[in-house]
Amino acid sequence: MDPFRFAIQARSGRARVGLLTTPHGRVETPLFMPVGTQGSVKGLLPKDLKAIGSQVLLANTYHLLLRPGPERVRALGGLHRFAGWDGPWLTDSGGFQVMSLGHLRRIDEEGVVFQSHLDGSLIRLTPERSIAIQEALGADFIMAFDECPPYPSSPEYLKASLERTLRWLERSLKAKTRPDQALFGIAQGGTDAGLRALSTRETLRFDLPGYAIGGLAVGETKEEMFPMVALSTEILPEAKPRYLMGVGHPEDLVAAMGLGVDLFDSVYPTRTGRFGSALVPEGRINLKNAQYLEDKRPLEEGCDCYACQTFSRAYIAHLVRAGEMLGGILLSLHNLRFLHRLTERAREAIRQGSYGAFAREFAERRFGKEVPLWFREAMAAGGHW
Amino acid sequence: MDPFRFAIQARSGRARVGLLTTPHGRVETPLFMPVGTQGSVKGLLPKDLKAIGSQVLLANTYHLLLRPGPERVRALGGLHRFAGWDGPWLTDSGGFQVMSLGHLRRIDEEGVVFQSHLDGSLIRLTPERSIAIQEALGADFIMAFDECPPYPSSPEYLKASLERTLRWLERSLKAKTRPDQALFGIAQGGTDAGLRALSTRETLRFDLPGYAIGGLAVGETKEEMFPMVALSTEILPEAKPRYLMGVGHPEDLVAAMGLGVDLFDSVYPTRTGRFGSALVPEGRINLKNAQYLEDKRPLEEGCDCYACQTFSRAYIAHLVRAGEMLGGILLSLHNLRFLHRLTERAREAIRQGSYGAFAREFAERRFGKEVPLWFREAMAAGGHW
Repeated sequence: MDPFRFAIQARSGRARVGLLTTPHGRVETPLFMPVGTQGSVKGLLPKDLKAIGSQVLLANTYHLLLRPGPERVRALGGLHRFAGWDGPWLTDSGGFQVMSLGHLRRIDEEGVVFQSHLDGSLIRLTPERSIAIQEALGADFIMAFDECPPYPSSPEYLKASLERTLRWLERSLKAKTRPDQALFGIAQGGTDAGLRALSTRETLRFDLPGYAIGGLAVGETKEEMFPMVALSTEILPEAKPRYLMGVGHPEDLVAAMGLGVDLFDSVYPTRTGRFGSALVPEGRINLKNAQYLEDKRPLEEGCDCYACQTFSRAYIAHLVRAGEMLGGILLSLHNLRFLHRLTERAREAIRQGSYGAFAREFAERRFGKEVPLWFREAMAAGGHW
Repeated sequence: MDPFRFAIQARSGRARVGLLTTPHGRVETPLFMPVGTQGSVKGLLPKDLKAIGSQVLLANTYHLLLRPGPERVRALGGLHRFAGWDGPWLTDSGGFQVMSLGHLRRIDEEGVVFQSHLDGSLIRLTPERSIAIQEALGADFIMAFDECPPYPSSPEYLKASLERTLRWLERSLKAKTRPDQALFGIAQGGTDAGLRALSTRETLRFDLPGYAIGGLAVGETKEEMFPMVALSTEILPEAKPRYLMGVGHPEDLVAAMGLGVDLFDSVYPTRTGRFGSALVPEGRINLKNAQYLEDKRPLEEGCDCYACQTFSRAYIAHLVRAGEMLGGILLSLHNLRFLHRLTERAREAIRQGSYGAFAREFAERRFGKEVPLWFREAMAAGGHW
């Protein structure tokens, strides 16, 4: 039997609850995947991630290629054993980080050449090499090698790029050898509806265990982004998991889950935590503000995370000011738990057929009386409001 | 009944196992106290400290005076509630940090004036102020305000300083108002046996719930230091706990426990952990060394800490190289557990009357065939070898 299965268990409008089976256990969708760039979710122990409800971790192929190197990870038992997380992993293809972190890159039909941001050495990454690296890392979910074009890009560039990404997908699939890894294709097309639809439909010509919506949340407005998400989930098959890459703002999750997205990842909750901010239903609070120095309340009333159950905002504000690493750790823990609780409550609402009410309650606390148009339109497109 | 009691439960030579009762629970001695300088043991959650056997935490009065300020800590429920550790706390007097971190200090009979290392503001610390701050912080154990003279100091300076410290002890005691805090006096005298004995005897004229051996591990050799420890524990009363301040190297703990010391603190295990080193029976290993990059063994075979139970040296070496904070966190956790296991095993050996055998086994792994003279002499003075 295929080690990867996806079963939709409940629907509310276009939102759905799914059960995703992997070689390292079953997970419930929609879900948010914490990012462990270098094989570690910064500052957090795997046991604490498990305790807050993390189900799948993401690691970055680009970073692990540079250090410690894929062969070393393979020799040390693959990501699961190496990094002490025995649940499922997902690795990206490396393409996105090459664009954003690598230097002196050159893109051609063969692949990309980049200079390591660590030691300046020249490294070539191709679909074949990306897959070989991801096979060595051993994640459950691996991604086809793609180009994520910068925003904005011209329609001509977007089209040429997405066509190359499709050829790279074909090569990625041919290069793949491990049956215990599921390869997802990535649709591109920027914020051009025609190209987005083209890229999505062409990607669907490959029968894959899941599909990613790529190239969004890279600088465009939410008014530009969400119609692309709505369009994508209309085209994507119901029976396969859909992964909206790099999205982690709570309001984006609520809008995208309403449109039928199943998987998310972003460094946002941990990065904003290390920078001193906590996610709360109203948005986020910056613990560097003096007002929190004597605030006895937890980061978020009613949150069940260790940070909220144990400490006051005042203590965490002190840690942040004092430069104590525990501040960023507690904020990261809370922020991840915040997103996990959000998806847990979304799943519950979907099971009860009341995703619209859930999203309305969320929006009232998040936006107050002025719910932005993009959010309302996403809700309408999802069949909720 | 006095909320502080100390009962000796077992002896082996001069080593002893004690049960120390505090308003926040009972603890077993000998014990090592992790240092939470600013109210946080760097990078570690209180629940993880509890899990590795930490019993008492130490916080630094100097740091908490500067930030967030004692009145704020008091208003937030004192250290126990503020910092989420409901076991016992100990605060130092602030004197040592003023000497080592403050700028433009002036010492006179009244106290010290120093410039904050944070904002340059001028701050006066006196015995009365130190006690008032420590009462606001609310630790179970508080320390008399003392001067820790630099090493080396002339006998004349040491004598004048220790006499002033005795007058400051008297003022500290007079200033103390809370019945739920135990004030320890600190004997000084540097490495001059006559002055050390004088300071210790004069400190004993005050009937206190415990006594500290101060002014050691500040630059002198172990050959100079341990005769002072031996002399001190000969003079100090059997029935009161003895605290050797600032000592945290495993071999120093074994030698000092053998001489009848009960309490220890040091930033060493956590600081050396953040710098990439792990304590092991043979000494310590630096995970930055290339040899660990493919080492599948845990930091220490047989260690029951989360780091050793979950990760290889190779993974932690990767984290250290990659600058991931999880590296320092895991090493801090292991190093503290290493010291806690050391005191746990010491207590067990003392209960069985076999501290000498325990210390010999420790020394054989730590030093090999050449056990240094200072260690052997400490063992002889403790009645073990």
